[in-house]
Amino acid sequence: MSNSEDDLIQRIRRRIPSGVGGELRTGIGDDAAVISPFRGREWVLSTDQFLENVHFRMDVHPPQAIGYKALARATSDLGAMGAKPRLFLLSLALPANRTGPWLDRMLIGMRQAALRFGLRLAGGDTAKSGAVAFNLTVLGDGPSRHAVPRSGARPGDAVFVCGRLGAAQLGLEIVLRNAYRQPRWRRLLRQHYYPDLAIDLGIWIARRRLASAMMDLSDGLSTDLARLCDASGVGARIDSRAIPAVTVPEPWRRRGLDPLALALHGGEDYGLLFTVPKRRASRIPASLGRTRITCIGEIVRGRGVELIDLDGKPKALVAKGWDHFRPAT
Amino acid sequence: MSNSEDDLIQRIRRRIPSGVGGELRTGIGDDAAVISPFRGREWVLSTDQFLENVHFRMDVHPPQAIGYKALARATSDLGAMGAKPRLFLLSLALPANRTGPWLDRMLIGMRQAALRFGLRLAGGDTAKSGAVAFNLTVLGDGPSRHAVPRSGARPGDAVFVCGRLGAAQLGLEIVLRNAYRQPRWRRLLRQHYYPDLAIDLGIWIARRRLASAMMDLSDGLSTDLARLCDASGVGARIDSRAIPAVTVPEPWRRRGLDPLALALHGGEDYGLLFTVPKRRASRIPASLGRTRITCIGEIVRGRGVELIDLDGKPKALVAKGWDHFRPAT
Repeated sequence: MSNSEDDLIQRIRRRIPSGVGGELRTGIGDDAAVISPFRGREWVLSTDQFLENVHFRMDVHPPQAIGYKALARATSDLGAMGAKPRLFLLSLALPANRTGPWLDRMLIGMRQAALRFGLRLAGGDTAKSGAVAFNLTVLGDGPSRHAVPRSGARPGDAVFVCGRLGAAQLGLEIVLRNAYRQPRWRRLLRQHYYPDLAIDLGIWIARRRLASAMMDLSDGLSTDLARLCDASGVGARIDSRAIPAVTVPEPWRRRGLDPLALALHGGEDYGLLFTVPKRRASRIPASLGRTRITCIGEIVRGRGVELIDLDGKPKALVAKGWDHFRPAT
Repeated sequence: MSNSEDDLIQRIRRRIPSGVGGELRTGIGDDAAVISPFRGREWVLSTDQFLENVHFRMDVHPPQAIGYKALARATSDLGAMGAKPRLFLLSLALPANRTGPWLDRMLIGMRQAALRFGLRLAGGDTAKSGAVAFNLTVLGDGPSRHAVPRSGARPGDAVFVCGRLGAAQLGLEIVLRNAYRQPRWRRLLRQHYYPDLAIDLGIWIARRRLASAMMDLSDGLSTDLARLCDASGVGARIDSRAIPAVTVPEPWRRRGLDPLALALHGGEDYGLLFTVPKRRASRIPASLGRTRITCIGEIVRGRGVELIDLDGKPKALVAKGWDHFRPAT
């Protein structure tokens, strides 16, 4: 049996009562749970872990960036549902030596994210632990039936992404290669340290009911598009030449960082991936605010994602994004 | 500066926007957040961590008990608000060697808790990690303005608890003393492994608006009563002779396990602690279903908790329950 993250989630949902129905409109397997307890309004609830030595490292990540990102990551799931962020719960596990100045600086970053995304802290839990661990639960809302699930993509739909893909991964690669202290690369760390989210775009799309499926790009395009296709029971064909890849400075290209590979497989972009029925595709603007929106291909019948390479030749796109439980290859 | 858990929470709430208002009726510092988005109905949201080597140990705790308890602990906070459990989100961090049979057995226990408390899994998050870590977010509901906060106790109110206090701690002590494999002590492990909750009692009390303040007993009576008093700006006087302490078999008494000490300071009982204005105290029955309810004292002016000892003499009750961040003494 494979132990990929998706398989793990399947095993959990088989064992625990988890069907949708009643007030639960969208459940496990999507970006967030959608709850419709009353007429007129829908609530969206999501939870996300952010763990020392798994998602961040104390020796390279500034406390402010850790606090900011812990909250931003979770909030991204609300954007993917087109929900307006409202409240959050913070679970925080801390070693005793992180309860002093480190905590204060971390909270400055989290405060920044809370103000930026319009979130208020409603509660939480603290525990002492050997390593720092965050769990953020976020709650947002929107008009009834506004939330866009992953499962609605249909053959013929256009596939869109926003922003430049691979920017966060480029920052991570620079961190992993120990060059993050060099001032000339500092601006390249921004999306890795303080990710921008596409909340406004998610709300804009959801309110206009333009998308047939939507999710955030957290684990890399190749992995996330495969998930959207699986959830919808369809395949996709995307074009390398259309993908808005991050700009990689020449010194880093020479050291093997390829813009297209970063864009296809790099995680933590937190932009949106969405599909739009052809007849509505022309209503998607080229940008919203400063967020660029790009059509990168279309949904097709069948299964799997096909990539048109830079020479115009099609090939199967293997999911190489982030998966905690994928067996090593 | 003291680093107790309560101080830590104060520092967090000073730095992150967290005021109540709008749809948020009760926020950080209580058992759960209370949200009133619409007329007629109120939602209650809480989150709780359950961490390997902090809250449980792989060598002594059966996987079923770990899965059951992870969910029960969080659900207890809903009971403390008088809310009916509805949905939960599961964040699960796992080492690779826990994704096989251990996971399956753990899920059997969690399923048991979900069915018992009427909870449906609505989503979650998985990550690979060096140790097992749970974060459970639970959502419940009730009629508008039904939720009972910690902060409403007033001088003259009667103080009630339910169940027998110290039972879970007795189980833990037997585990820590390595006697948990002996069949004759097995029944004493039950409240430690598979805690029963006072959900029905919490709902019963809240719907009748009998209590002025309520919370669950998770960290021990001495610690939790001090928290309720602090939140309400009052003191309390309780009587040792009235406290319904767990029955401790003679062999364990001889080894130093004192029923009253277990009842005062033992954690994880998950019963309810609540206060009732004197004129309504007679409406509290001696039991509800199989849950025994006992008046143990009264709320007084001032601060701090006074304990009448077994000889009838008053003394200050020092909080010796569970606090992750209390400096060692």
